[in-house]
Amino acid sequence: MTTAPLALSSLMNHQIRLAARPVGLPTESNWSRTSEAVQEPLEGGIVLKTLALSLDPAMRGWMNDGKSYIPPVGIGEVMRAGGVGQVVVSKNKNFTVGDFVSAGFGVQEYLTLNETEFKHSGLVKIDLRVGTLTQWLNVLGMPGMTGYFGLMDVGQPQAGETLVVSGAAGAVGQTVGQMAKIKGCRVVGIAGGQAKCDWVVKELGFDACIDYKAGPSAVKEGLKAHCPKGVDIYFDNVGGDILDTVLTRINRKARIVICGAISQYNATTAVQGPKNYLSLLVNRARMEGIVVFDYASRYHLAVAEMAGYLQSGQMKSKEDVVRGLDKFPQTLLKLFNGENFGKLVLEVASV
Amino acid sequence: MTTAPLALSSLMNHQIRLAARPVGLPTESNWSRTSEAVQEPLEGGIVLKTLALSLDPAMRGWMNDGKSYIPPVGIGEVMRAGGVGQVVVSKNKNFTVGDFVSAGFGVQEYLTLNETEFKHSGLVKIDLRVGTLTQWLNVLGMPGMTGYFGLMDVGQPQAGETLVVSGAAGAVGQTVGQMAKIKGCRVVGIAGGQAKCDWVVKELGFDACIDYKAGPSAVKEGLKAHCPKGVDIYFDNVGGDILDTVLTRINRKARIVICGAISQYNATTAVQGPKNYLSLLVNRARMEGIVVFDYASRYHLAVAEMAGYLQSGQMKSKEDVVRGLDKFPQTLLKLFNGENFGKLVLEVASV
Repeated sequence: MTTAPLALSSLMNHQIRLAARPVGLPTESNWSRTSEAVQEPLEGGIVLKTLALSLDPAMRGWMNDGKSYIPPVGIGEVMRAGGVGQVVVSKNKNFTVGDFVSAGFGVQEYLTLNETEFKHSGLVKIDLRVGTLTQWLNVLGMPGMTGYFGLMDVGQPQAGETLVVSGAAGAVGQTVGQMAKIKGCRVVGIAGGQAKCDWVVKELGFDACIDYKAGPSAVKEGLKAHCPKGVDIYFDNVGGDILDTVLTRINRKARIVICGAISQYNATTAVQGPKNYLSLLVNRARMEGIVVFDYASRYHLAVAEMAGYLQSGQMKSKEDVVRGLDKFPQTLLKLFNGENFGKLVLEVASV
Repeated sequence: MTTAPLALSSLMNHQIRLAARPVGLPTESNWSRTSEAVQEPLEGGIVLKTLALSLDPAMRGWMNDGKSYIPPVGIGEVMRAGGVGQVVVSKNKNFTVGDFVSAGFGVQEYLTLNETEFKHSGLVKIDLRVGTLTQWLNVLGMPGMTGYFGLMDVGQPQAGETLVVSGAAGAVGQTVGQMAKIKGCRVVGIAGGQAKCDWVVKELGFDACIDYKAGPSAVKEGLKAHCPKGVDIYFDNVGGDILDTVLTRINRKARIVICGAISQYNATTAVQGPKNYLSLLVNRARMEGIVVFDYASRYHLAVAEMAGYLQSGQMKSKEDVVRGLDKFPQTLLKLFNGENFGKLVLEVASV
């Protein structure tokens, strides 16, 4: 290593921690801001500098108490977040200072990882020749993996089928729609606002996009107009009324991929169940949940495939980048009011 | 044929027709009673005498207007009903007077079928050496086929898994639970009342049965007690609160077979959607609808398999038989207040 050794003791690590569980939308009072010296790693360990963090709807779920697919973030703990960054100290022969990696960084400036923690943190090297840093948080990261495996393994698209995806301009939606186009489907997005809809159609090549904010029957009318042969696959990121409406338009043997329900994450009353779920019976259709971690052993295959599409121009990706660790609390809210345009990324430091 | 030809013109056919679409539970005013001479069949046709009719929850759905998996019964039409009966006139070389058959009889005493209508009516000969008349409406009939294919194709039971079935003492539930036992599952029923629960456990051999009428948290507590390893397959005949409760206890990769939702069929407000459906996401589980007609080409295989179990005593069947065509309206209601104990059959005539 040619770099001069970093004086860890002089480096402060700024962090954002969960201070209290939110009721409804998170507010400033749910967070605390702390700073502490960067921890020295044990032999075999490394220190990472956070470059960018992925802000995801799932974060809202992690803030709740109770059983889910992963444990909740504890009160007082650094908020969980996936991210990309760079090795700044290495006591491990497999990592060199300057290496770029993806890992569960948490909302903080530095992360010290001992070797026993590598696997749990999802630590992997990333190659910036394959994709940019923010693409590694988007189509080549968790949202991309979620979209890829949710579509391919659960949705099982066949050429000629019609796919509808909500949150179409979001991180997962981008991947789903573009992959479905590549697989020969008719692709109709649902997104909030004309700008997102235009981008999804003009830039990503979706066949149509429905602006759900255009009026109370916009989704219903849009599906009628743009899915003349009905809906074979619905990739649901939002739940609520949109899920209910799509259920009225599904075809026989349709597949509904339940990836998320952002409309319900801040609900302070009971979640709105899909009241048209008996359409599953009438249409012999299925609704199935997906959790991306199940596909970890195949991430590299999806990355390789989609990196090829990115390079050939068959896939595009859009990130909405906000700068500054301290902006985390208000930036997260952009996801829930639909303000983000593309995959929401918090840039913490420059390379 | 040695039988003297039947004088059709002298035979009156009593019928029950749909007079008006019900709102909520059907009442006497939704029905009309008619009688007309039995129709003479064309060359190739037959006349059937109704012996027994199958009364099913699905009938309530057929009474509603609107798109479903089959068209609604028209106003003024004879109410649709599957049944078993006997050939009384044959102008077809494949049928002999005295043959027993299963078909879509309708709620009437006689059915004239021309050859072009055989297939649509589901006409098939039945063999009373294989099963009794009422068994041909139960485990060897539509409910049995529904249970068999819903369990085997959608539920995909594996030995050692835990299956829960609602409507456990009903026609479909009996088949599902007994088949799942044969396949090596732990089987827990949900039924209304101690008598049904006792029967399901003592006669059918279920591992346990939860009386949902025993109290507001009976299902929740019962699942905790009787499904210590969680629920791998839930075969749902009822929907509503019971579906919601089971959703909180499912395992990873669980399968929820949506066969019906009898708790919702007479709802005059919106159907209650499963508010815990996000458990599908957390558990990577699926919820899938089943319509028995899709499996028509394989009915004979299921009949052969289950007839073997009936003969060996590995399966039992229970029918709740009410006598008299004119009792159809009030008998149908037994399904919706849970009064029927076993597969509900309306006996129309004796052999």
